[in-house]
Amino acid sequence: MPAKPLATVRTAAALRRAVAQWRKRGDTVALVPTMGALHAGHMALVTRARRLAKRTVVSLFVNPAQFGPHEDFAKYPRDEAADRAKLREAGVDLLFAPDVAEIYPPGFATAVAVSGLADTLDGVHRPGHFTGVATVVAKLLIVAQADFACFGEKDYQQLQIVKRMAADLDIPTRIVGVPTVRERDGLALSSRNGYLSQDERALAPTLHRVLLDTAEHIEHGANIDDAVARATSELTMSGFDGVDYFAAVDAETLEPLDRLDRPARLLVAVQLGRARLIDNEPLKPTSRAPAAGSGRPRSGTRPRGGSSR
Amino acid sequence: MPAKPLATVRTAAALRRAVAQWRKRGDTVALVPTMGALHAGHMALVTRARRLAKRTVVSLFVNPAQFGPHEDFAKYPRDEAADRAKLREAGVDLLFAPDVAEIYPPGFATAVAVSGLADTLDGVHRPGHFTGVATVVAKLLIVAQADFACFGEKDYQQLQIVKRMAADLDIPTRIVGVPTVRERDGLALSSRNGYLSQDERALAPTLHRVLLDTAEHIEHGANIDDAVARATSELTMSGFDGVDYFAAVDAETLEPLDRLDRPARLLVAVQLGRARLIDNEPLKPTSRAPAAGSGRPRSGTRPRGGSSR
Repeated sequence: MPAKPLATVRTAAALRRAVAQWRKRGDTVALVPTMGALHAGHMALVTRARRLAKRTVVSLFVNPAQFGPHEDFAKYPRDEAADRAKLREAGVDLLFAPDVAEIYPPGFATAVAVSGLADTLDGVHRPGHFTGVATVVAKLLIVAQADFACFGEKDYQQLQIVKRMAADLDIPTRIVGVPTVRERDGLALSSRNGYLSQDERALAPTLHRVLLDTAEHIEHGANIDDAVARATSELTMSGFDGVDYFAAVDAETLEPLDRLDRPARLLVAVQLGRARLIDNEPLKPTSRAPAAGSGRPRSGTRPRGGSSR
Repeated sequence: MPAKPLATVRTAAALRRAVAQWRKRGDTVALVPTMGALHAGHMALVTRARRLAKRTVVSLFVNPAQFGPHEDFAKYPRDEAADRAKLREAGVDLLFAPDVAEIYPPGFATAVAVSGLADTLDGVHRPGHFTGVATVVAKLLIVAQADFACFGEKDYQQLQIVKRMAADLDIPTRIVGVPTVRERDGLALSSRNGYLSQDERALAPTLHRVLLDTAEHIEHGANIDDAVARATSELTMSGFDGVDYFAAVDAETLEPLDRLDRPARLLVAVQLGRARLIDNEPLKPTSRAPAAGSGRPRSGTRPRGGSSR
């Protein structure tokens, strides 16, 4: 017997009606915004959404507004049929897959911008990117009227911007960050990993290894500037084509950090062949950071996927 | 027996709860956003709101984000007690009167900007003003979840910007424009009219008279540039302290108009003493505009308050 097809709507009005019907029955709703090309990272968002709420909506929209003029909008991987199969299998209740004209009709002129948070890190290297993200996510949240919306910690800056935007606009949806899913070698899953050649793919996990080592050094008391400089140099030496940034920042405001005196995050972006890879790791403040080289054992293979991620 | 006091909430969460209760019962809701200092123009918005929906919410918030650094935020008239009395008398169901920290809590960083529409006319003379307006109105609309929201045509550019913003962000509230209410001598009601001296108040109605005359000239076929130049000169000669703009524009896009070949609007802003006055009138395209000076009678006292306003 064929499985029931995945219910799909293409317009904001249809999504609004579907959610209103659920709400009438008292069902809670969780939204998972995606650009498709779904991998296990996206499916972790779906799993989390299904645990949080009775109904799960996934949106699939490759948002032109968040791509720069020289970025990969045209070649970004698209396979709605494969995505639909995965979502149906995962028990998603509804797919919202609008076309560009539904989201940006003629005359569209409104932008949602988050200052500060969006002006640093990827905001410097991808001008306009986060305004494109914040605008489309605001629209999705306003239409979906969801109780929860799940975003990956892989895009950590995006997650903080979406949290800020939703709070600032009084959108009553709880923004939930979901830990990054990684390959066994540590590489964070990304739809853009497919751009890597075999050699580049072999080098790519170094990014996460250096990130973990640097986090550990800083948590053990290393000077932040020194640790970051060493990491940047190590990435360049090992063959990455450029380090856009490697930064230790406040976990919420993303402001630069001198000392590990509050919850923080280490964020990195590199170029590798045709791909631009980003990753991040938490930096946990220690009550009294011991000096570098103290007796506490240091491991080059810090356990991955621990409870904090 | 004392009248029932006006129900008042100070937080977005409380407003959301109140509206959700009404919605549960199937009541429709209309919102009237104001900055207080209520006059008959605001009360016309309330009257319209009460006709449109079962429940009427008025918001009262003097929005610092829409005042420039040299504008009148500090001295803008405030009298909540008098406003409350008027609203209770008018049968309003709920007043939302938040303080600044409720609307803009520490760390607030989000702006809603409408390009094009907000970059012309008052947008040129009051940089940032319409972003301040669009941001606070987006918040109000998102929280109130109203079926209708009423705005005065007096602030015509604001009305078009709010319509665009609500449509672009998929906010399902119908934005309703309400005709300008005028003094018997034609002066549009405004909380800022109180800034006028006696002499200035005597001159002020000339603004509307020139606006009406110019609209009539253009509708009768006068060249738009000529008519606008003549009007600007007339205003300056009669004693206004400066004409920020006098423009004939497309009624929806606010783009400059060469010929009256579609629904249009004549908008004006002048300085008069400590006050800045704005006003506008519709320009109705005629099927075949006769040449200026044709036989059609021209009246300097075009009827006011006709059905089109």
